[in-house]
Amino acid sequence: MKVDGRRWRTIWLADDGRSVAFVDQTRLPHAFVTARARTLSEAADAIREMRVRGAPLIGAMAAYGVCLALGEDASDSALDRAVAILAATRPTAVNLRWALDDVAGLVRQLPPVRRAEAAYRRAGEICEDDVAACEAIGEHGLALIENTAGHKGSDETVNILTHCNAGWLATVDWGTALAPVYKAHDAGIRVHVWVDETRPRNQGAALTAWELGRHGVPHTVIVDNAGGHLMQRGRVDMCLTGTDRTTAAGDVCNKIGTYLKALAAFDNSVPFYVALPSTTIDWTIRDGLAEIPIEERDPAEVTAAVGRAPSGEVLPVTITPDGTAAANYAFDVTPARLITALITERGVCEASAEGLGALYPEGRATSSRHPPAGNGNQGDAKTLAPERS
Amino acid sequence: MKVDGRRWRTIWLADDGRSVAFVDQTRLPHAFVTARARTLSEAADAIREMRVRGAPLIGAMAAYGVCLALGEDASDSALDRAVAILAATRPTAVNLRWALDDVAGLVRQLPPVRRAEAAYRRAGEICEDDVAACEAIGEHGLALIENTAGHKGSDETVNILTHCNAGWLATVDWGTALAPVYKAHDAGIRVHVWVDETRPRNQGAALTAWELGRHGVPHTVIVDNAGGHLMQRGRVDMCLTGTDRTTAAGDVCNKIGTYLKALAAFDNSVPFYVALPSTTIDWTIRDGLAEIPIEERDPAEVTAAVGRAPSGEVLPVTITPDGTAAANYAFDVTPARLITALITERGVCEASAEGLGALYPEGRATSSRHPPAGNGNQGDAKTLAPERS
Repeated sequence: MKVDGRRWRTIWLADDGRSVAFVDQTRLPHAFVTARARTLSEAADAIREMRVRGAPLIGAMAAYGVCLALGEDASDSALDRAVAILAATRPTAVNLRWALDDVAGLVRQLPPVRRAEAAYRRAGEICEDDVAACEAIGEHGLALIENTAGHKGSDETVNILTHCNAGWLATVDWGTALAPVYKAHDAGIRVHVWVDETRPRNQGAALTAWELGRHGVPHTVIVDNAGGHLMQRGRVDMCLTGTDRTTAAGDVCNKIGTYLKALAAFDNSVPFYVALPSTTIDWTIRDGLAEIPIEERDPAEVTAAVGRAPSGEVLPVTITPDGTAAANYAFDVTPARLITALITERGVCEASAEGLGALYPEGRATSSRHPPAGNGNQGDAKTLAPERS
Repeated sequence: MKVDGRRWRTIWLADDGRSVAFVDQTRLPHAFVTARARTLSEAADAIREMRVRGAPLIGAMAAYGVCLALGEDASDSALDRAVAILAATRPTAVNLRWALDDVAGLVRQLPPVRRAEAAYRRAGEICEDDVAACEAIGEHGLALIENTAGHKGSDETVNILTHCNAGWLATVDWGTALAPVYKAHDAGIRVHVWVDETRPRNQGAALTAWELGRHGVPHTVIVDNAGGHLMQRGRVDMCLTGTDRTTAAGDVCNKIGTYLKALAAFDNSVPFYVALPSTTIDWTIRDGLAEIPIEERDPAEVTAAVGRAPSGEVLPVTITPDGTAAANYAFDVTPARLITALITERGVCEASAEGLGALYPEGRATSSRHPPAGNGNQGDAKTLAPERS
């Protein structure tokens, strides 16, 4: 999307044709800087340290991480090691595993000398597929926003609440939850976004507010506590979030706190939509609560907040008494029953096995071959590649 | 309660017998310092700047604010002016208005020369009544915790989630929501508190964690987004919060975000209790959503977080891009239907007009005399004075 008029993506192959350039999201919103990963280790660090984050973008960086590893050593053991290291960086996002399986599965069939080139080509395709999928999500979601706008007065604004960052910064371009917002804004529909700050890492306050602001979309930042109140008062027309992992039955594992907003939306009859490329669907599981382990991160993210001090320096400030214990669960599961619909690259569907199965018959076939708590494997991964609707 | 072994209250008459000493809560948790209000203006500032906060404590400070005003000028007009200034400091807490009406109503009947002395006496009684009411709430709530503990194994911990600070720092002593926790802990029951950090001002991370830690009660700070996840996973045995204003029908207006936790508790069959001295009941209203205006505070509380920098300095850090719009709603309304029970100084009751009316027949009588959207007045206020159970 645009930053002050110029188009950007979050990740791209650098001029040297080997290293991977990306927007360093840990520096936002106070500085807009790009960085490079030149080795497997730097790619893994970029994911682990959340310099790149968001399920689709993590998948793209993981694919390039395999490329960087193969550029140094294209043996089977080096490939296995790269996949293992990258898979361990973030446990929740299914795109990460999907992208790794996809690239590794492809190149493993080739002689080592041809692997790196093929991996780079596939990583590039994954990025283009992600852009296409997100833009398609934007078109399908735009129809929902247009419908809402049609029920309001012509001078009224459509108010959309979002949690965390599922914008273009979470993908290669366009975003998932924010793609429909950008499409609507660009089409001249009056939209306004309530941006949950999204503690502990404040991806809403730091990233969503930044990208909406740079593209010119009206928005207001609120604390994570405020969304229920706004919905009670009729100030929210729809909620729109992303997902890090979606089960075959439509349960959604997304940033911690998503479940609370879904409860409030349900209680106030506000539509709650979740936008996703099908790469975030884990066809091997159905019950999100029972089957998705929740990533726990450093408690220091909770006991401190990071921001720009009056001196201009960006630093963490401690908000708790010294020595206070904290727990830092990164995600929660929103049951399908609370979700009005899923917005995918192939269209809008009910959050259910039937809804997803109708749009993705090949996924449903995959799902039925798996035991409920099974894991994906490389053989199935190919059937999950995003396709244009 | 105790701070490192020594007993403290949040507010007390200073040695000079005129000025009011208090714990400066804007300095916690990084410094434990006391301050003094010597004039009406300083008392009003202390409330407005949240150096004292919490519905019952605001009431106590407001009562002393009237005393300080009368010490300078005991005329009717000075009294009216003091009440108006203090009433405008925080719009939500009904205790504030109750305490002002109580003290002003009492002294207005006296000749000016006797007003200041009578006001100080009454302010002292309000403080003692609050301590007694909170301790009674603690006893009634203790029974609920004992009951929960009885259903768990003897070596299991009772996990209690609380939002914001409704501890002794929010009252004169004991607290409302935390009074049962202190009683249980002191009685040797294994309790552990999940402390919502409570953005934007982080009263949970700063105040609740501090007072629980100083008294020795095990606790863990979490972001406001996390409570739903913990309840889904069976990690919360009960929720326990305070309230700034309770309607005659049992709706509760409390710190923004309380409603979201009540929804999660309801969805997961976790008991949701609200603790209150009857001074927080506004008998003149029934429908919290329709009848309680929600205080909006400075957006800068949302766009920044305050904490201790690595240098040791306590300062705000900006978490949003420059110029980002933010909205800062301080409270939300939790409908009675989501509340398992209210814990008052007279006992535990259903969150309903019937439940409250059975415990407070004099309040119900007041309520029925009021039109639904009416305001309290000084004549009724006397019937609302806290009484021991």
